[in-house]
Amino acid sequence: MIKIIDVLKTKPEGQVITVQGWIKTFRGNRFIALNDGSTINNLQCVIDYVNLNEITLKKITTGTSIKLQGELIKSLGKEQSVELKVTKLKIFGKADPEKYPIQPKKHSLEFLREKAHLRIRTSTFSAVARIRSSLSFAIHDFFKNKNFYCIHTPIITASDAEGAGEMFRVTTLENDFLNKKKEVDYSNDFFGKKTHLTVSGQLEAETYAMGLGNVYTFGPTFRAENSNTSRHLAEFWMIEPEMAFYDLNDNMKLAEEFIKNILSYILINCEDDLKFLDKRLNDEEKNKPKIERSEMSLIEKINFVVSNKFKKINYTEAIKILKNSKPNKKKKFKYLISDWGTDLQSEHERYLVEKHFKCPVIIYDYPADIKAFYMKLNDDNKTVRAMDILFPGIGEIVGGSQREENFEKLKERMIKMEIDINEFYWYLELRKFGTAPHSGFGLGFERLILFATGMTNIRDVIPYPRTPQNASF
Amino acid sequence: MIKIIDVLKTKPEGQVITVQGWIKTFRGNRFIALNDGSTINNLQCVIDYVNLNEITLKKITTGTSIKLQGELIKSLGKEQSVELKVTKLKIFGKADPEKYPIQPKKHSLEFLREKAHLRIRTSTFSAVARIRSSLSFAIHDFFKNKNFYCIHTPIITASDAEGAGEMFRVTTLENDFLNKKKEVDYSNDFFGKKTHLTVSGQLEAETYAMGLGNVYTFGPTFRAENSNTSRHLAEFWMIEPEMAFYDLNDNMKLAEEFIKNILSYILINCEDDLKFLDKRLNDEEKNKPKIERSEMSLIEKINFVVSNKFKKINYTEAIKILKNSKPNKKKKFKYLISDWGTDLQSEHERYLVEKHFKCPVIIYDYPADIKAFYMKLNDDNKTVRAMDILFPGIGEIVGGSQREENFEKLKERMIKMEIDINEFYWYLELRKFGTAPHSGFGLGFERLILFATGMTNIRDVIPYPRTPQNASF
Repeated sequence: MIKIIDVLKTKPEGQVITVQGWIKTFRGNRFIALNDGSTINNLQCVIDYVNLNEITLKKITTGTSIKLQGELIKSLGKEQSVELKVTKLKIFGKADPEKYPIQPKKHSLEFLREKAHLRIRTSTFSAVARIRSSLSFAIHDFFKNKNFYCIHTPIITASDAEGAGEMFRVTTLENDFLNKKKEVDYSNDFFGKKTHLTVSGQLEAETYAMGLGNVYTFGPTFRAENSNTSRHLAEFWMIEPEMAFYDLNDNMKLAEEFIKNILSYILINCEDDLKFLDKRLNDEEKNKPKIERSEMSLIEKINFVVSNKFKKINYTEAIKILKNSKPNKKKKFKYLISDWGTDLQSEHERYLVEKHFKCPVIIYDYPADIKAFYMKLNDDNKTVRAMDILFPGIGEIVGGSQREENFEKLKERMIKMEIDINEFYWYLELRKFGTAPHSGFGLGFERLILFATGMTNIRDVIPYPRTPQNASF
Repeated sequence: MIKIIDVLKTKPEGQVITVQGWIKTFRGNRFIALNDGSTINNLQCVIDYVNLNEITLKKITTGTSIKLQGELIKSLGKEQSVELKVTKLKIFGKADPEKYPIQPKKHSLEFLREKAHLRIRTSTFSAVARIRSSLSFAIHDFFKNKNFYCIHTPIITASDAEGAGEMFRVTTLENDFLNKKKEVDYSNDFFGKKTHLTVSGQLEAETYAMGLGNVYTFGPTFRAENSNTSRHLAEFWMIEPEMAFYDLNDNMKLAEEFIKNILSYILINCEDDLKFLDKRLNDEEKNKPKIERSEMSLIEKINFVVSNKFKKINYTEAIKILKNSKPNKKKKFKYLISDWGTDLQSEHERYLVEKHFKCPVIIYDYPADIKAFYMKLNDDNKTVRAMDILFPGIGEIVGGSQREENFEKLKERMIKMEIDINEFYWYLELRKFGTAPHSGFGLGFERLILFATGMTNIRDVIPYPRTPQNASF
């Protein structure tokens, strides 16, 4: 059995082949456009309808699964180079046009979200899925070539202090679990204590970096936040590299190289899918007022990121730019920038990236008070060695830092931020035994896919999105 | 900064290099064995202790992290080909020999489980982790080369009918969530209904196979079973390929090719780690009575699996063999085999694999009554197109089947097995619209790692094992 992606690369010399897939369209009682998911491109299959019985012919509709045997010949049409002259035909399963929802017409993304088990059969969703898969491979490939080891950090965790967000509880207790005081008695729970779904594998990844040197995780992470936006999921995938002996500069350099490398990979390996999505986005933009349309096409945007140096500024510089910006002076920002020390909001990040610099921006050296406990304190005792990478149209795509490797400083910071140092004794011990400078970052996989595909709702770049009130399929 | 794995491949010509890592041992006030995690091999670094101050010298102990600069020269010793003549030395973090638990002596695996945040610094655990990482890459590489797409199926799911095992509940409800009837009101929960952690991504993977053709998942799965054995985890990783237009034979063929391919990959790419674990296992076996020792070394076992055809028998043949086997006749089995239709227990599987065939065995065509609802019914109406692959020392490592693609038959089977057809309407719809023969299997990643590393407890092949009463770190 040969896949259509390979058939289309084959020189047509009348050889007999068998293909299997789903009918995309059927034209003129003669031309089946067959797709098997291996590529966005269909194989044109020409059937001899005169010698086909009526019953079979009626089943040849969009969505029907079929096996076709025939000769591969040079196509007479201009649309494709090869076509299949069908000699044998077997229908596996029909798709009643009255009932099958995925018809050859434009469906809204909202409608398709309701049909998430079928939407993979559309060109848009299959293109996104193939790009997601290619990015996933590119990530593993990038790290392998750099001697990074892939590790699997725990999904269920008893820690809840990282503060990255609200957590889901994991339990086997049912209704009857209240003790005499009507309190939950977690000692009867599966793990003998209260457990949650992880918000990040970073702390555990650090323990492994202190042995293996360079490691990364690529796994699901969770936020139980009631955020019903186009950029938030309750369950999403994150890539978190962690490197021994890396300082913040090494960290920023790696993150930039990483993003450019994996985007280059899909430019080379997903050309047809990207072209399709490029056209799709262009068609979408036509419905927008001119001022809202983007200056670059999807492929141009990806190329731009790959070939231009990211702009690097520290937090203090960023605040200065924002303070003197038009939208701040004209009070157009919802959160006006006045003092050093305030956290940047999405509107500020977008201004810097989309209006001011017009390229990806790395902001580093944030005020300690707005960042996590594990970030390395600078000598100014005010800022930490944190960095965020901001992308046009997406906002924050990477968050990272050099980690505090000094035992006393880390302990002091944890106490100050009310983090239980007994619970995290193991994390502190990394600083007691053979501590070393180290850094890492996290990249939200779905946000990267949004950028790489031009899709605008994060629910459309993961097979079965989990959001408040929605865990269907 | 160069990694030791690359240093050891470099021709020593007196070039000045800088390495960073942790001290494994320090001998004769002169020889530091340095490891940076990139390889099991250490770099011998020779320091000029005469010109070193006493305070620094005292810090040079096992576990200390250090940066060394010097000339890379041909080694005079026989143990290694290159060594570093150190000219500059910087200590990052010491490891007090009185307190640091990972000393250069043999530690029990039980002791190291208590120190799971530090055990990656031992040779055994770093070798296992590197092999785990290599297997993980080999898996992605194998599927990519076959045009399979990697998909991420949901971790949180509202389905609970697959019946693969007990499930963990995922919730944001706290103590106060009982309604007036003192019942749990899931409509107030995060997803508006009762949700669990997935036991398998198969059903969702099937939906994607019906669009993309060939797909696979590689993600965490969960069982809330109170199994405190050396082969069970509450959280483990599974690989689940799902292929459109594959029948059971194609499925078995793929599974065998897959296992052989990824094991070949580590034979080539993890030679040093495998040699270390081979020796380790050999040393362990010396403590066993002769009769319990395995006939083959670790590397021989892997080679054997790679180069021999798996034995294929159907369930009925397996029962016949077991019924007539010595342990059955002599009533040595805990569960005696009498009638066709009983499920195979671990002791039976081990007999077939380890005593009878002495090679991996694929058993197929199981009785329908002991297998899951989605497996394709054979024409005999008694058996289903299921298959399990059994490995020596491990037992079941793969479970798979051809899926029932007939709408009526599947619906009937679901009703019979009391599975809510309304909840799984989407799964049934795959058989309504463009249904096609398809198959898939699941491989338990940790069990494969047990086989590939010669480790005997599954808690030792995942960074932070989750088992009943244990969710530490």
